[in-house]
Amino acid sequence: MKLNGVFIEDEYAEAFPNWACRVILTAINEKWAVNIATEATGFATTNIGCPCEAGIERILTLDETPDGRPGVAMMFFAGSKKRLEEQVVARLGMCVLPSPTAAAFDGMPDAKDRIKVEIHVFGDGYEHEVKVGKRTCWAIPIMNGEYIGEEDFGIVKGIAGGNFLILGENLPATLMAAEASVDAIGLVPGTITSFPIVASGSKVGAKKYDFLPASTNEKYCPTIRDQVPDTKVPKGVTCVYEIVVNGVDEAAINAGMKAGIEASVKIPGIKMSTAGNYDGTLGPFKSPLREILKANK
Amino acid sequence: MKLNGVFIEDEYAEAFPNWACRVILTAINEKWAVNIATEATGFATTNIGCPCEAGIERILTLDETPDGRPGVAMMFFAGSKKRLEEQVVARLGMCVLPSPTAAAFDGMPDAKDRIKVEIHVFGDGYEHEVKVGKRTCWAIPIMNGEYIGEEDFGIVKGIAGGNFLILGENLPATLMAAEASVDAIGLVPGTITSFPIVASGSKVGAKKYDFLPASTNEKYCPTIRDQVPDTKVPKGVTCVYEIVVNGVDEAAINAGMKAGIEASVKIPGIKMSTAGNYDGTLGPFKSPLREILKANK
Amino acid sequence: MKLNGVFIEDEYAEAFPNWACRVILTAINEKWAVNIATEATGFATTNIGCPCEAGIERILTLDETPDGRPGVAMMFFAGSKKRLEEQVVARLGMCVLPSPTAAAFDGMPDAKDRIKVEIHVFGDGYEHEVKVGKRTCWAIPIMNGEYIGEEDFGIVKGIAGGNFLILGENLPATLMAAEASVDAIGLVPGTITSFPIVASGSKVGAKKYDFLPASTNEKYCPTIRDQVPDTKVPKGVTCVYEIVVNGVDEAAINAGMKAGIEASVKIPGIKMSTAGNYDGTLGPFKSPLREILKANK
Amino acid sequence: MKLNGVFIEDEYAEAFPNWACRVILTAINEKWAVNIATEATGFATTNIGCPCEAGIERILTLDETPDGRPGVAMMFFAGSKKRLEEQVVARLGMCVLPSPTAAAFDGMPDAKDRIKVEIHVFGDGYEHEVKVGKRTCWAIPIMNGEYIGEEDFGIVKGIAGGNFLILGENLPATLMAAEASVDAIGLVPGTITSFPIVASGSKVGAKKYDFLPASTNEKYCPTIRDQVPDTKVPKGVTCVYEIVVNGVDEAAINAGMKAGIEASVKIPGIKMSTAGNYDGTLGPFKSPLREILKANK
Repeated sequence: MKLNGVFIEDEYAEAFPNWACRVILTAINEKWAVNIATEATGFATTNIGCPCEAGIERILTLDETPDGRPGVAMMFFAGSKKRLEEQVVARLGMCVLPSPTAAAFDGMPDAKDRIKVEIHVFGDGYEHEVKVGKRTCWAIPIMNGEYIGEEDFGIVKGIAGGNFLILGENLPATLMAAEASVDAIGLVPGTITSFPIVASGSKVGAKKYDFLPASTNEKYCPTIRDQVPDTKVPKGVTCVYEIVVNGVDEAAINAGMKAGIEASVKIPGIKMSTAGNYDGTLGPFKSPLREILKANK
Repeated sequence: MKLNGVFIEDEYAEAFPNWACRVILTAINEKWAVNIATEATGFATTNIGCPCEAGIERILTLDETPDGRPGVAMMFFAGSKKRLEEQVVARLGMCVLPSPTAAAFDGMPDAKDRIKVEIHVFGDGYEHEVKVGKRTCWAIPIMNGEYIGEEDFGIVKGIAGGNFLILGENLPATLMAAEASVDAIGLVPGTITSFPIVASGSKVGAKKYDFLPASTNEKYCPTIRDQVPDTKVPKGVTCVYEIVVNGVDEAAINAGMKAGIEASVKIPGIKMSTAGNYDGTLGPFKSPLREILKANK
Repeated sequence: MKLNGVFIEDEYAEAFPNWACRVILTAINEKWAVNIATEATGFATTNIGCPCEAGIERILTLDETPDGRPGVAMMFFAGSKKRLEEQVVARLGMCVLPSPTAAAFDGMPDAKDRIKVEIHVFGDGYEHEVKVGKRTCWAIPIMNGEYIGEEDFGIVKGIAGGNFLILGENLPATLMAAEASVDAIGLVPGTITSFPIVASGSKVGAKKYDFLPASTNEKYCPTIRDQVPDTKVPKGVTCVYEIVVNGVDEAAINAGMKAGIEASVKIPGIKMSTAGNYDGTLGPFKSPLREILKANK
Repeated sequence: MKLNGVFIEDEYAEAFPNWACRVILTAINEKWAVNIATEATGFATTNIGCPCEAGIERILTLDETPDGRPGVAMMFFAGSKKRLEEQVVARLGMCVLPSPTAAAFDGMPDAKDRIKVEIHVFGDGYEHEVKVGKRTCWAIPIMNGEYIGEEDFGIVKGIAGGNFLILGENLPATLMAAEASVDAIGLVPGTITSFPIVASGSKVGAKKYDFLPASTNEKYCPTIRDQVPDTKVPKGVTCVYEIVVNGVDEAAINAGMKAGIEASVKIPGIKMSTAGNYDGTLGPFKSPLREILKANK
């Protein structure tokens, strides 16, 4: 199968369950909403080594936020409810509450599973409840006025590890295709790309250093193509990027992957797309590239 | 003392020692250098609650980077050498190495104290040493070519907690003054503003909730000015922001504070500047505002 | 009438007819679409002194562009069809065709009035017709591939000069409110703000220099409030900004003004909104602020 | 000669005299300085078809501006003094004076040749002279306070048309190399890139349409390589971009070209650099690529 002249390998992405929380962050303008969300979702590329995975889901219009101010939706992912709650508390408490003009609202009001983000005690008794629309929030006096925040956030059993690989004839083309993918996935509700672009693929364990849990996936390293007999780097390919997609459910992951691949193949110099899987050892979700790409929107 | 018509209170900022590390990050263009550094220095506003404090020190010109590519200097601060090493390892390993076209170099080559960031084993035996100028680096094969990185980074006994407060007649004026401060401090070598703007001042402990280590500093909360007998919010002030400056030494902290205050008083609507201190219980460094502002550059 | 505590004066904006053309510009990514559109719509704040009025109407999603690439809608306004055609030809020919990866499409395919933008002869015989969807375009060989462009663009009798004034207690608050207005109007289809924020109001003619067609409107100048007996600057106001809105029709102008005013009054420090009119000497369109604000969306 | 593996053709760029003016623009923050300068230098890619050529020379530090505010240096180029004066007057009058918080200062105080930008009469008698350092400026009351501006600007006999071509194996690589060139030239004092990247090379006249003053330079069009016997597109090249550099003198042009080429060859996928010349019919200045690249900084 080819898409816009680019070969789509008959492979599938393998993904696994992860708890997901969405927080709506608003501020006095879009610049500050994005600034604050960027800090709050930083150091969160991968659950291996970072405290959680996080990203900006998308920028919201004034109509979409509970207080009618500019805002963004942030998403956080972790392996356990406990870790997810701990991280959302830390990141709202340390990066959102102290930031200029921030307010935070539950982005999954219909979810049955909930976490508590009880930071109103910071108000030391000066805090009080307020309604924003029908939402019950705490107003905490701070130096630039009041921080307004909900303290009960919905979470769902989401998915981490949706992915695809972009193989190109040189680095700039492949990078620009990966950027196009990330931009396109940015428009798909319910998804984030936490890295957002992965330049270093990894395999489980290592051949030389047996103490390592993971090491470079030499099969996808173009500079050592000639030293690796079972290389997966086709002739004429000098660069590979992986896009990892987390989402609220399989439909979101698949829509994100479809949008990302379709955007990437429009960039000249791209040779091939494929995806990463591990014989079911990683997780139960399978996203076959060719099926996804044939699906209607 | 008045500066551009703004009252400068006769107060001093109290700061304390903190270990500091500078990492020079380069990439294929400035956009990616900034993107990667932003992720690597995220979730790092305060050592209370975040794993470390971090920020972009400044954007570097092509002449200033070891490999002649666009780059930025990042700075990381922590209370112990061990924590600092742990965080620099995690953030370079999880946010820099996996990012498109990144390379990382020691930003304090003359420092006697050193930390190790040994990530070359990720190469699983395919890695090799390379020289970038006179620097010994590891080249690790990854999917977009090779990650180039030094693994021995200088650290110094730096300072955290330099600060000043901006008091204004309304929120937009005070926010714009705080933004001007942060931009000006961004040009002062050896400093970062990890928040970068603090909207929520805190006091040690709490009056109502005795289990809290810290709570809102009600004396600087304009919305409850009438409920707080010992309020420090002057009449006519409705917004206060704090700028916290970390630096490599006292000279850097003071130069940063001076640049920040001088920039803030140019914004219409600012009434007063002051600084936070705690009778020496926080730390040994004192930065008296009026002396700092009189100093030559 | 007050809106969010801000006094809305019982005034109306007076506007006048102007020919309007919309061009859809696409490029390899959003950054270049915006860059190119910014150049093509530059030096176009006012028909008095600039060759035309122009601006970016809004950023388009991939679904909204004829070629599925990232894009923006630009709008151009001029007093005559001839001038409008001349300017669209010049700006597409000099700023769009020569720019990286640009393509240009008719943004008003249903309009009866048309202008011709015949630039395919630049191809010197190497050009050829192509279809993009159902649109007939010219493909002109250039150095980075082919420029793709339609050459027949719809125009409509639009409106220029919709406006409102924001009066605030200091400059930063008023500027931030004006920025919020412009951002909000940016989401309203069929409108642009060509300045985008006007810091210098003008009156017809002059009192001192009789050779001038226009001069500063001293009634709205805060710094000379005490020298102008009929000043319109209320006590406590030190800054005034005007937002000028051009649109495809009265509904667009009014929706833009409504969105702009509603966004501005959310910013602390704003005292009042009003609008500019000239007893019908400027034009036939009247937009009464209070009626507009009461209208449903 | 090869530079970083990229073939540098033994060619020279041919350039011609053009009058140049530098204006220092300051504002309340860098964002607005850049916004205003972008509008004021828009629709100014080429003197053929645009009223002038213009661009942002560089962003200035607080130390470099007459009023200590954030600022940028803009440069304007035109074939005659009269046209240059006319355009600087129009662009300062229509795009700078009406913009939030703008001030404008002479950026060539030592130049003997001068132009007048007399816009203080807009103040209708309310204007007054002020000193900014040693500079005599006019303060004109407007709605957000006072516009501050010098009215006497230095101009010099500068140069337009310095250029080089970047040839690459695909569009994204060539575009990224061109972006790197523009960024690097952005750091060279005394230069601008008005387009900033040219995707459409032109030849004088046309072969098919004899009424045209200029048409596509088919020799550098990759898509018609097989139809053009004397094509200059080497095998394996699918994209060409031209960077045009204007400067205050030959040294600036050459430094800009050198910085631009050196930055471009660091991007993977670039095959060759060359330059455009016309047997001396265009102008008297010659910039031979190989000599320029060998020169010390």
